[in-house]
Amino acid sequence: MTTAFSSLSGFREVMAGQGAVDSKMVKAASARNGQLTKPPGALGRLEDLAIWYAGWRGTDKPVVAAPQVIVFAGNHGVAAQGVSAFPPEVTAQMVLNFEHGGAAINQLAKTFGARLDVHALDLDKPTADFTQGPAMSEDEVVAALQTGWNSVDAQADVLVVGEMGIGNTTSAAALAAACFGGTAHDWVGRGTGVDDDSFAIKRRVVEQGLARHTGISDGLEILRCLGGREVAAMAGAMARARSLRIPVVLDGYICCAAAACLLKADADALDHCVAGHLSAEGAHSKLLQHLGKEPLLSLGLRLGEASGGTLALGVLKGAVACLSGMATFAEAGVSDG
Amino acid sequence: MTTAFSSLSGFREVMAGQGAVDSKMVKAASARNGQLTKPPGALGRLEDLAIWYAGWRGTDKPVVAAPQVIVFAGNHGVAAQGVSAFPPEVTAQMVLNFEHGGAAINQLAKTFGARLDVHALDLDKPTADFTQGPAMSEDEVVAALQTGWNSVDAQADVLVVGEMGIGNTTSAAALAAACFGGTAHDWVGRGTGVDDDSFAIKRRVVEQGLARHTGISDGLEILRCLGGREVAAMAGAMARARSLRIPVVLDGYICCAAAACLLKADADALDHCVAGHLSAEGAHSKLLQHLGKEPLLSLGLRLGEASGGTLALGVLKGAVACLSGMATFAEAGVSDG
Repeated sequence: MTTAFSSLSGFREVMAGQGAVDSKMVKAASARNGQLTKPPGALGRLEDLAIWYAGWRGTDKPVVAAPQVIVFAGNHGVAAQGVSAFPPEVTAQMVLNFEHGGAAINQLAKTFGARLDVHALDLDKPTADFTQGPAMSEDEVVAALQTGWNSVDAQADVLVVGEMGIGNTTSAAALAAACFGGTAHDWVGRGTGVDDDSFAIKRRVVEQGLARHTGISDGLEILRCLGGREVAAMAGAMARARSLRIPVVLDGYICCAAAACLLKADADALDHCVAGHLSAEGAHSKLLQHLGKEPLLSLGLRLGEASGGTLALGVLKGAVACLSGMATFAEAGVSDG
Repeated sequence: MTTAFSSLSGFREVMAGQGAVDSKMVKAASARNGQLTKPPGALGRLEDLAIWYAGWRGTDKPVVAAPQVIVFAGNHGVAAQGVSAFPPEVTAQMVLNFEHGGAAINQLAKTFGARLDVHALDLDKPTADFTQGPAMSEDEVVAALQTGWNSVDAQADVLVVGEMGIGNTTSAAALAAACFGGTAHDWVGRGTGVDDDSFAIKRRVVEQGLARHTGISDGLEILRCLGGREVAAMAGAMARARSLRIPVVLDGYICCAAAACLLKADADALDHCVAGHLSAEGAHSKLLQHLGKEPLLSLGLRLGEASGGTLALGVLKGAVACLSGMATFAEAGVSDG
């Protein structure tokens, strides 16, 4: 597969100005929505969601027929410091579990008719410990962005990206703080469920990482210094989806930290994204506010692996089915009040 | 079809003590859930939801394969007072729309693989105006309860009940107030979107209804005096579902008002019910609190016709798929922290 870029500046170029919502179709879908057999606004957020989707798909009667879910896996140098409740080898074990169909995301992808792809990124080569230096070299972050970019199926009509990586809520907290300000205290949560000791280590690691890489304002450079391969791959996939006008449903805290780096690099980068859910990870709510996204679901999930975003596909499917399938007042012979 | 009851007291008898959760299977499902390849609690509310469902279905590996959605339609005497933004003939028009597949609920039922049944109850005979006397005679309310009871498919594995009836948020507000106390002011909302004049009429009608039928403490008598045929049918279907151990996903304000009458009649009557969503109808949140139910979704819907409950089937399906389909740590060879 030819790659659209081979450097961070190349990625920045392909990101900028790629893909755009079809405002004519937003208008057409809004007009259609106003004629459907229901009181105005009675489908609540489903109406805005379906109209937004219609705009990105470029039709006023869209369908959700080919969802793609991609889970990226990566290992983190900071995991060695004891920031997680699970040992680093769980990343590779869970990749096998994904491949054998045993994880939550397998069941959810199947439930909502989504194709599931899994990409393990150099699991035997964790990123560098970001308290010591940049997590990735430019070549490494570009390779991860490329993996993400190339993993998107051009025939998909909606994309959910997710991750698996022991230690990656630590990375996500550092990314969020670097993008939006604040301290480790503001952004570090319990992740998979760390005890008080590991929680204290996690905060200290994020503090040290922020101190080590202070004053970086570019989102992609933040991603390189504090991110991880799976985080960069999610960013690459989200950018590629935009260029293909494929709407994206965001997953939890780590996915949103990847999105934050894109937003920091380009103010329009997330126009094709909707927040799938509010996770139980403490700072996710604040992160979503910075992204300007209101979650569709809030069910206390904190699993990652695209689970919350994939669950939200049900809401999207329902919303789009109503917009495209309902009769108008005129078609149904119903008095419109 | 033989009917299980022919009077309100007969209905009360068949309701009481029918159906029960299988506590052995609740334990088995909880144990299974604790071994699945995810951090403890990482699927949030999905875990409790799936365990509850397992208990009602009597298996620790349940499936959601045969959802049934039933929409009941009825007309209300109080509609003549101008309590709705739509004329009463819309009830029958919307029934035709359901039958022709053009309504929101048709699209949602299809999206979530549910069978959809529609029962129109004597649309040419609105209930009596409850400001003048009881909305229904005993024979009438029993007939409506029977329609609901008999409409449940014994092969279904989850049920959503919904309604269509111009004027029925007025009835629902009166039912809620009669069941749980408070004034018309506390319980009357904008329904399909009434203007200020109709809103004032709506409040006055509910006040008059409450004054006319004051001091009734029995839930089924409240249902008879202030309810409607479609509301009673929903109650009948929910009771029947319990007797068949079919879990129920509650819809919006009117469905929950029907549920309130059952709860008032029998404290265990809603153990097999989960709240599908929080609607935009102002007092729905308070009504759910009285029912002791936390909604799965909150997306600003206010359409009725089982739409919110059916949308929540996606969440239930995802939850149950995870419980029944995921590998355990031992099966997958994943270290469990």
